[in-house]
Amino acid sequence: MQLCSFYLPDQERKSFGIVLENGVIDLGLRFGAECPDLKSFLTRSSLADLDAFRAMPADHPFSALRFLPVIENPGKVFCVGMNYADKRKEFAETLDAPTLFVRFADSLTGHDSPLQKPATTQEFDYEGELAVIIGKAAHQVKAAEALDVVAGYSCFMDATVRDMQFTWFTAGKNWPQTGGFGPWMTTADEIPDPQQLAIKTFLNDREVQNDNTSSMVHPVAKIIEYISAFSPLSPGDVIITGSPGGVGKKRTPPLFMFSGDVIEVHIEKIGRLVNAIA
Amino acid sequence: MQLCSFYLPDQERKSFGIVLENGVIDLGLRFGAECPDLKSFLTRSSLADLDAFRAMPADHPFSALRFLPVIENPGKVFCVGMNYADKRKEFAETLDAPTLFVRFADSLTGHDSPLQKPATTQEFDYEGELAVIIGKAAHQVKAAEALDVVAGYSCFMDATVRDMQFTWFTAGKNWPQTGGFGPWMTTADEIPDPQQLAIKTFLNDREVQNDNTSSMVHPVAKIIEYISAFSPLSPGDVIITGSPGGVGKKRTPPLFMFSGDVIEVHIEKIGRLVNAIA
Repeated sequence: MQLCSFYLPDQERKSFGIVLENGVIDLGLRFGAECPDLKSFLTRSSLADLDAFRAMPADHPFSALRFLPVIENPGKVFCVGMNYADKRKEFAETLDAPTLFVRFADSLTGHDSPLQKPATTQEFDYEGELAVIIGKAAHQVKAAEALDVVAGYSCFMDATVRDMQFTWFTAGKNWPQTGGFGPWMTTADEIPDPQQLAIKTFLNDREVQNDNTSSMVHPVAKIIEYISAFSPLSPGDVIITGSPGGVGKKRTPPLFMFSGDVIEVHIEKIGRLVNAIA
Repeated sequence: MQLCSFYLPDQERKSFGIVLENGVIDLGLRFGAECPDLKSFLTRSSLADLDAFRAMPADHPFSALRFLPVIENPGKVFCVGMNYADKRKEFAETLDAPTLFVRFADSLTGHDSPLQKPATTQEFDYEGELAVIIGKAAHQVKAAEALDVVAGYSCFMDATVRDMQFTWFTAGKNWPQTGGFGPWMTTADEIPDPQQLAIKTFLNDREVQNDNTSSMVHPVAKIIEYISAFSPLSPGDVIITGSPGGVGKKRTPPLFMFSGDVIEVHIEKIGRLVNAIA
């Protein structure tokens, strides 16, 4: 099952729902004040409660809605740096522990919405990544049980201002609307092994990254164990699991994104996240 | 004027108020549902609205309340690393740009509450710091106007798990209840120049840090300019401005904190933040 968050311009209303081929079933309408968005739904309800709705027809065609970030206002967004073998080679990374940085919610944007290149940078780089959406409270969980706390998986475009990245990444990763997150999450029951997913990035239809999540140095279950050891996770929290190699900064000549470019992340069993650069 | 956030165990109620010599004036009682806490007060009201209350007697003696973090649930907590000349020498830091990391709200704790040493570390280190509390929305403000968006200043104990710090600091700085924040904020009108404040840290009454905020490499106004250039700031957001030298990791022999120790941060014109280690 695919779940998304969306905005209905005609009704000036936000909601979330089940993705069908021709549109979405509006769950905000059904769950109302108690669960107005996907984060509160994950907090207060359970995916099993959705079985009753899955056979319904779509309430809205895709043309009637704008996609929001899968989770619009996560409590915590952790990002793992240098987590693919090829990317570690490109950046000569030698550290063994997962290197973590944080994105604030206002740096996120949805599928089909523009990514905002800051006017001050000429090094706006792409990083296609697998996003993990937490579905249950998780503190000090072991890797063997860690996938049980995952609600689902999504695509993420971790667009990066390389010339403000410096150390610790905070400044290079938190410009408004630089993190594409969507188009939806595929629930974890459909992805029993998150380490067997093809992941590709396309810049203006040219393939610029091509790898498989099996190349992660720290797999999803280990990352959850590592983070939850020190920081309690809650439903709707998000972990971005790092980028494969092939980023623009390390190409000869370098390849960056400018206004009018279109960047896409494809992940097997999830889908295709598309963002134009504004 | 000093403003604090607190919990009243007898009434099982949180509030915020004006600090007097013998207790606090309860502003939560007066501003009610509209502004139940200091963050919402800074968002929806203004410090000038408090003039009517300042001559009142205290509603609660200090013995009736427990201090909360000055802002209990900030939208963003930015922390500046390596911002004092002596600390930069200790850690051989050469980077010019402010190095930023993030704390989540659940890593904060109030004055007189215990700091939680994680059981897994033997390197729980102290860093006494000046905290800046934002009072107005601020996006791309210049240094010359930056102090106008400050609501006030507080003490901060940025307790650090050195053996999980690694790169980018996220893991070493986000264990639950490791950031002491209080006891209150002194409003900015009483601190026209935040770069002229004596700052000292005491471990079990022994002075372990002694410097002045004039030693900051990046002064408060410049830090606000740098951060707000990429990340919009909102009332209640917090910036922790970095630690002077003298931290335990760089002493011979090293000096770390263990259960039963008491750590204090004193800052001129603000006060004294005290936390025992649990």
